[in-house]
Amino acid sequence: MSVYDLVVRGGSVASTEGVFPMDVAIRGEHIVALGQDLPQGTREIDAKGRLVMPGGVDAHCHIEQLSGGGIMNADTFESATRAAAFGGTTTTISFAAQHRGDRLRRVVERYTALAERGALTDFAFHLWISDPTPETLVEDLPALIDAGHRSIKIFMTYENVRLLDEQVLDVMAVARQHGALVCAHAENHGMIKWMADRLVSRGYVAPKFHPVSHPRGSEAEAFERLIRFSELLDQPIVLFHVSTAEGAAIVRRARGEGIKVFAETCPQYLFMTADDTDRPGLEGAKWMCSPPPRTVRDQNALWRALDLGDLQILSSDHAPYRYDETGKLSAGPGSTFKQIANGLPGLETRLPLMFDAMVSRGMSTIEKFVEITATAPAKIYGLHPRKGAIVVGGDADIAIWDPNREVTLTDEAMHDNSGYTPFAGRTIRGWPEIVLRRGSVIVSDGAIHAKPGSGKIQLRDCADSMKPSGTPSPEFDPQTNFGAHLA
Amino acid sequence: MSVYDLVVRGGSVASTEGVFPMDVAIRGEHIVALGQDLPQGTREIDAKGRLVMPGGVDAHCHIEQLSGGGIMNADTFESATRAAAFGGTTTTISFAAQHRGDRLRRVVERYTALAERGALTDFAFHLWISDPTPETLVEDLPALIDAGHRSIKIFMTYENVRLLDEQVLDVMAVARQHGALVCAHAENHGMIKWMADRLVSRGYVAPKFHPVSHPRGSEAEAFERLIRFSELLDQPIVLFHVSTAEGAAIVRRARGEGIKVFAETCPQYLFMTADDTDRPGLEGAKWMCSPPPRTVRDQNALWRALDLGDLQILSSDHAPYRYDETGKLSAGPGSTFKQIANGLPGLETRLPLMFDAMVSRGMSTIEKFVEITATAPAKIYGLHPRKGAIVVGGDADIAIWDPNREVTLTDEAMHDNSGYTPFAGRTIRGWPEIVLRRGSVIVSDGAIHAKPGSGKIQLRDCADSMKPSGTPSPEFDPQTNFGAHLA
Amino acid sequence: MSVYDLVVRGGSVASTEGVFPMDVAIRGEHIVALGQDLPQGTREIDAKGRLVMPGGVDAHCHIEQLSGGGIMNADTFESATRAAAFGGTTTTISFAAQHRGDRLRRVVERYTALAERGALTDFAFHLWISDPTPETLVEDLPALIDAGHRSIKIFMTYENVRLLDEQVLDVMAVARQHGALVCAHAENHGMIKWMADRLVSRGYVAPKFHPVSHPRGSEAEAFERLIRFSELLDQPIVLFHVSTAEGAAIVRRARGEGIKVFAETCPQYLFMTADDTDRPGLEGAKWMCSPPPRTVRDQNALWRALDLGDLQILSSDHAPYRYDETGKLSAGPGSTFKQIANGLPGLETRLPLMFDAMVSRGMSTIEKFVEITATAPAKIYGLHPRKGAIVVGGDADIAIWDPNREVTLTDEAMHDNSGYTPFAGRTIRGWPEIVLRRGSVIVSDGAIHAKPGSGKIQLRDCADSMKPSGTPSPEFDPQTNFGAHLA
Amino acid sequence: MSVYDLVVRGGSVASTEGVFPMDVAIRGEHIVALGQDLPQGTREIDAKGRLVMPGGVDAHCHIEQLSGGGIMNADTFESATRAAAFGGTTTTISFAAQHRGDRLRRVVERYTALAERGALTDFAFHLWISDPTPETLVEDLPALIDAGHRSIKIFMTYENVRLLDEQVLDVMAVARQHGALVCAHAENHGMIKWMADRLVSRGYVAPKFHPVSHPRGSEAEAFERLIRFSELLDQPIVLFHVSTAEGAAIVRRARGEGIKVFAETCPQYLFMTADDTDRPGLEGAKWMCSPPPRTVRDQNALWRALDLGDLQILSSDHAPYRYDETGKLSAGPGSTFKQIANGLPGLETRLPLMFDAMVSRGMSTIEKFVEITATAPAKIYGLHPRKGAIVVGGDADIAIWDPNREVTLTDEAMHDNSGYTPFAGRTIRGWPEIVLRRGSVIVSDGAIHAKPGSGKIQLRDCADSMKPSGTPSPEFDPQTNFGAHLA
Repeated sequence: MSVYDLVVRGGSVASTEGVFPMDVAIRGEHIVALGQDLPQGTREIDAKGRLVMPGGVDAHCHIEQLSGGGIMNADTFESATRAAAFGGTTTTISFAAQHRGDRLRRVVERYTALAERGALTDFAFHLWISDPTPETLVEDLPALIDAGHRSIKIFMTYENVRLLDEQVLDVMAVARQHGALVCAHAENHGMIKWMADRLVSRGYVAPKFHPVSHPRGSEAEAFERLIRFSELLDQPIVLFHVSTAEGAAIVRRARGEGIKVFAETCPQYLFMTADDTDRPGLEGAKWMCSPPPRTVRDQNALWRALDLGDLQILSSDHAPYRYDETGKLSAGPGSTFKQIANGLPGLETRLPLMFDAMVSRGMSTIEKFVEITATAPAKIYGLHPRKGAIVVGGDADIAIWDPNREVTLTDEAMHDNSGYTPFAGRTIRGWPEIVLRRGSVIVSDGAIHAKPGSGKIQLRDCADSMKPSGTPSPEFDPQTNFGAHLA
Repeated sequence: MSVYDLVVRGGSVASTEGVFPMDVAIRGEHIVALGQDLPQGTREIDAKGRLVMPGGVDAHCHIEQLSGGGIMNADTFESATRAAAFGGTTTTISFAAQHRGDRLRRVVERYTALAERGALTDFAFHLWISDPTPETLVEDLPALIDAGHRSIKIFMTYENVRLLDEQVLDVMAVARQHGALVCAHAENHGMIKWMADRLVSRGYVAPKFHPVSHPRGSEAEAFERLIRFSELLDQPIVLFHVSTAEGAAIVRRARGEGIKVFAETCPQYLFMTADDTDRPGLEGAKWMCSPPPRTVRDQNALWRALDLGDLQILSSDHAPYRYDETGKLSAGPGSTFKQIANGLPGLETRLPLMFDAMVSRGMSTIEKFVEITATAPAKIYGLHPRKGAIVVGGDADIAIWDPNREVTLTDEAMHDNSGYTPFAGRTIRGWPEIVLRRGSVIVSDGAIHAKPGSGKIQLRDCADSMKPSGTPSPEFDPQTNFGAHLA
Repeated sequence: MSVYDLVVRGGSVASTEGVFPMDVAIRGEHIVALGQDLPQGTREIDAKGRLVMPGGVDAHCHIEQLSGGGIMNADTFESATRAAAFGGTTTTISFAAQHRGDRLRRVVERYTALAERGALTDFAFHLWISDPTPETLVEDLPALIDAGHRSIKIFMTYENVRLLDEQVLDVMAVARQHGALVCAHAENHGMIKWMADRLVSRGYVAPKFHPVSHPRGSEAEAFERLIRFSELLDQPIVLFHVSTAEGAAIVRRARGEGIKVFAETCPQYLFMTADDTDRPGLEGAKWMCSPPPRTVRDQNALWRALDLGDLQILSSDHAPYRYDETGKLSAGPGSTFKQIANGLPGLETRLPLMFDAMVSRGMSTIEKFVEITATAPAKIYGLHPRKGAIVVGGDADIAIWDPNREVTLTDEAMHDNSGYTPFAGRTIRGWPEIVLRRGSVIVSDGAIHAKPGSGKIQLRDCADSMKPSGTPSPEFDPQTNFGAHLA
Repeated sequence: MSVYDLVVRGGSVASTEGVFPMDVAIRGEHIVALGQDLPQGTREIDAKGRLVMPGGVDAHCHIEQLSGGGIMNADTFESATRAAAFGGTTTTISFAAQHRGDRLRRVVERYTALAERGALTDFAFHLWISDPTPETLVEDLPALIDAGHRSIKIFMTYENVRLLDEQVLDVMAVARQHGALVCAHAENHGMIKWMADRLVSRGYVAPKFHPVSHPRGSEAEAFERLIRFSELLDQPIVLFHVSTAEGAAIVRRARGEGIKVFAETCPQYLFMTADDTDRPGLEGAKWMCSPPPRTVRDQNALWRALDLGDLQILSSDHAPYRYDETGKLSAGPGSTFKQIANGLPGLETRLPLMFDAMVSRGMSTIEKFVEITATAPAKIYGLHPRKGAIVVGGDADIAIWDPNREVTLTDEAMHDNSGYTPFAGRTIRGWPEIVLRRGSVIVSDGAIHAKPGSGKIQLRDCADSMKPSGTPSPEFDPQTNFGAHLA
């Protein structure tokens, strides 16, 4: 009997450091050896001519969840993670979304139950806090963080879920004490509300006015604000879905000052612009998300920011709504842009879109692709080295890509429930053909081989990025970051 | 009979451009000629060996007004403008302070009546908006701006007076349409509230914790925010009382980007530090103001920012409270810093402090002194050339200084009603000896010669700084400043 | 007999502070009074409906001088200052140009003699140093500075005149000791030489490759370098003819750091682009100057930099060469761009071009026009308040403009000897009609009324901008600016 | 017989991605497997409780070489690489130093012969160009680059070796065409020369004036200049030995603009300051190097820059001179600082100093230590994945560290020939005990087990960092980077 249950043989194994021709040996759920000419495994997968890459980690997706606006998104854990798996992603971090009045610990139990029933991939949750009552802050949140839910999502806009500044600080203080990251949808609420109200009142109601209602400055402003809070409390943050050149520049500047800020962008900000919403009737609704995609200049700035490491994470922000009365059109055919649910499907297309651009079209490297789509999110969110890399001792989450396969995206070919993809018609070169999750093949030959509920929750120890610094930072002074002592 | 009612003869006349030995001829209330060897006037003032300077314009002072916290300040218009006049200031801009529930037009009527009864100097008002109801925004504010009240004050902090972001935008939109500047107390409310609550709850209650409760970042944050609003609406703003190096740097950056931002600082930020509040018992309360003075590094940065023109205005932010139960100690001897009224007297000492530093001690020039204390505020607020400069056609508001007179400041020598000066003990070189207001001597020989109520209101045409730009700015685009089109 | 020799009556007098309706009274060569309804003068000029402005100060022009490349420029002092006077300029600062081997004091004597024979306007010299021998540095330069020649010109490029870095420092050290400004043509020699050589060797020889041979970075680089020298020695500098957005940004940054840097731009950088050199044959030579004009984006950046005060001075850099074998075509009809003399005529058109843009077309204000074309150069170079402003005690150098007169520029109408203007065909609104120099009318009714040689040399005391600081700057430290102690 | 020649068993293997408990299997000179419980090797090394790290790559050291000033340094290849090996370094890149008049290809032959006779570690060369004659540029340099010498060193200062700007561009153009990096000693020659001459002429001759003679701005200036050249030619550069906060900031800004600049610092800039040269007599000479160490503020800035990735490489700049008449004191006991050879020994202490600070004292992480001392230099200089990482297929260059061993540095314990260490007396925690080079143990039990000359030359393919970009960069324009087309 072989010492290895499975050997992926003859492929080129990609990591953030390089691409190495070697075999990958798996025992049970784990990678146990990497090497040349490894002994025969009980099973073998021939990876000649293929890229052997870590399964993707999608650290920002909405699954089986009510939006801030109260619309149920189109996916169950089963449909969402099916789409993820077909796209080469083996771990998702979606939201345990507390709406006002919800008891946070019940929220987590409910989402855990949903995921344990449906998920095909492994999963974790960001704790979405919209009701920071004493019960939430003193009882539930500390316990949940300590139990391994080490990331929190807060909103600075959206009427029903947003927190006031002092509430943001309250949440950040608990995060600091217990060791959790704070992730934010950071846009200025007042600017968006003021613009949206004025636009609608003057008859500017089509989807193409949605981008206008989110001025670029609303992102920059909220970034600056949250960064000041981070500085005050010496608490790391993640800025979600950076959409503007200014936003990326602010992140760069803050990191340069030693402030603990991480940042993410998404394919829609690299491949779409505001003009995508400018279509007849309400059709533009399919391309509506928040923040909106901006301009080609912003795309270029975001690419550079990824290259420079100013942005570390590439997520999908998968937020699927059908283009019908259950989703985008829930307010009817006369909807103004304010009444249309924001969000795009993206779990399945995230990796192919990025591979095509970064590797096939030469805008970047395989190493960077692995880094931003798998290794860096795993590290930042405390999943590494279990997830996000092909390393000895890590989970055998592997996507085997044919770098030359060409696929033209169509609405019909997608496996999630939103019914469309904003990237329909685009031809992609490079596609994941075989996907392993903890040593099991879950995708091959265009079919799923995993059972709903076979995904496992990923509780997290305190990752480096979340560690409360044991000592005051060197520049500590009473006027700058005394908040860290009060947290 | 002479063609001139009064000639100030033989002095050195200072302006932003230089110091010129010449006579100043006055007819009625106005300056009508400047020259060498002007004809004899009906009256003459000998100014040999003296500096003849424009009367100061103090564009930020609280007079006969209820604070945001509900404490009446110590001065009447009579006592405040008496102090101003002794200090060489001939025009004040104080606040017509709307508290919630107040009808704005009544507020202006009330303050106008108070000033017309008491003022010794000329005066104007900033419209302080804390209740931007439709009545305020649609009826009163436009009418008042059109009538010549062309500056508005808003607060981003202080529970009872602060505006939410969308309200700030509403006020700015009206200002843009009708041509008024928007001045702001810009600090982040949530940070201050969170810090103050935590400090007090942990027993950090002494006055010296007041500066700690206003983190430096709370200023920087609010500056960034308001600047984004200014950009969105293409509406000029004035940032009051810049206290930090970061704040000054943000102003510089924004101006460099073409955003219409003006800024002010005050003597307390140039001559005091946070340590001034660290005194036995509640004594430190006398040095408490908001934002708090910071560090020597900040002082240096503010001096440089004045020199560079990043800060244009030097005001007093005179906010007088007696160190007794009517003022600072209204909450009793066990007050926490949160319960102590913020503010310092400063109308009288503003010009001598600045002259002593800038001219006598050589930190700057006479030209710059005239600019930041008189000409620039007059220009920015629409009072120039009537006020703020010794020019033909302008009001004969003149302060004749002995540049060599030395005065040691004492509590007793002050002419306002606060009962103390935070600068007691400091020796000043250079002092205004004779003060003219519209051609009349109102101070000489250490005595006041004007009647209460002899000051006149200064209504203002639309100054350059306030002009709504007739056309979209050149960089206009739908994602950046479309708000200007909706205003 | 009147107390006044001449009264300019009823005009609107412009200064950096505003425009005031008042009369200007002149006695002898000086302004002695400004006022309403001044007494009758012996002579009167009716200025109703006219703008009464200080005569322009053109602080950068080449007159009757051999270029760095050895071509004599087309103008004598008579022809150059005739053009200046027609364009409203009453003071020029041209160069006393030392070529290698020249004795500096003889150079100054020679240029003084030339100017005293020909000049119609008043004049001063920048000491152009291309041979910093001990004789120059120890004997001549100190004596000349002390005698009132308080500005020095150095070149960082042009083979025959440029200084090496250590020579630049030697010159700056003498300037610091004796109180002179150092002005620079700051471009990186190596980059230009390398580019020009490669371009020509590959056959890129047309005038349109001249701009390519001066990469934008060559300006930025040399600015950074000279600014470091300024910091090292604590010595003020003037960066001549800023042409790029990057250059302007570098100046802004350095000023923000407290480095004593002043900067100039010229009409060609505001109104022309590199494309102007792209014409058939050698025709483009007429638009060739160094540095070359750049792009519309640069024009916009320079306008903003003027507005912000980052650039203080607007000069012509008048450098006239005829488009024939005496000038531009001295190397014959087969010249490469390297063989064509660089430079444009501009003394006459400088003020009308700027007035038209700033005032008539509303890009700026009259106050700013006066500042950058007259008052600021006078102040920075030590000519104020004698020159550059209409002030009591100053020289009566006045240009009376008809703000509504329209003039279309033509080659034929110009009064200098270059034979063309690069702005031919452009229609200007606003033109100087009467020009006074020290109380004498030198231009009226389209004719010159001054004699060659009637212009006077303007020796200068140590102006503020040139004062060596008596004390080490506050940030003094051995690793940053110890050079100031060694100077 | 085993499939593996050697297994390093039971250690914790460190990479830039993490620390993994696993075995390392070696066949011949290469690593062939990484895994848990690998089969028995022919030989085994027990690494329990040990860190198994890639052998260090020291990319900047002077070995058996004449200095710019003409002093032979103290080490042979044997002595230098012996010290390197004891310190955990297995690859050196030293200089093939062309002095003026030398034929470059002969220089490379000579240094290759010296290294092949003496080296214990593997080695490569930077081509040091001080005589860019046509022969050098057209014949030798292209051939040598093509043969695998893919990095060039140029000097911007030091009289005997420095290049003029146009020569730097010539060298960079060849580098671009053939695919080599250009590394630079970037300091402004004129500033240093001017300062040194003035200091000496005024009697400031002690070693402590050496830092004064290299103003901080001389580094900043030269960085800016070389970065402009890099931009002009689209050619990657490496800035050696960054010493100042400003220098690091300039690198960050340039990288943010997309300019291809890499940068290095050295232990002396992280652990020493200018004050180290302030000792009695000439003793300070032992701490003299160029650029000089600066201040604690600079140290902090450099640490942050390493953390941010603005600086990628940590080298020793080993430049050993004995403190006697053969080295530091070659000009005798009355030497001025100008006459004392610059440089410090550092090959042996580089890794222990950095490990102690980064890992033992917690200033950073093991991952970062591996990155800056081994993986990043190997990648940037084209040695990866052969060198710089423990990866399957790579050379088995491994240092096995005891993380807890404490060693106090002494002059006597050092293995190079300089006779001292500037860090004597410092106690280090963490030390390399066993060192493998291509699978052979070269250090164990405190002894060397390799023969002189057993090190092998490392020729290099074109690494990513050196690849000439096949296409003009996206922002290509005739005024910015046309030089790339002329190269």
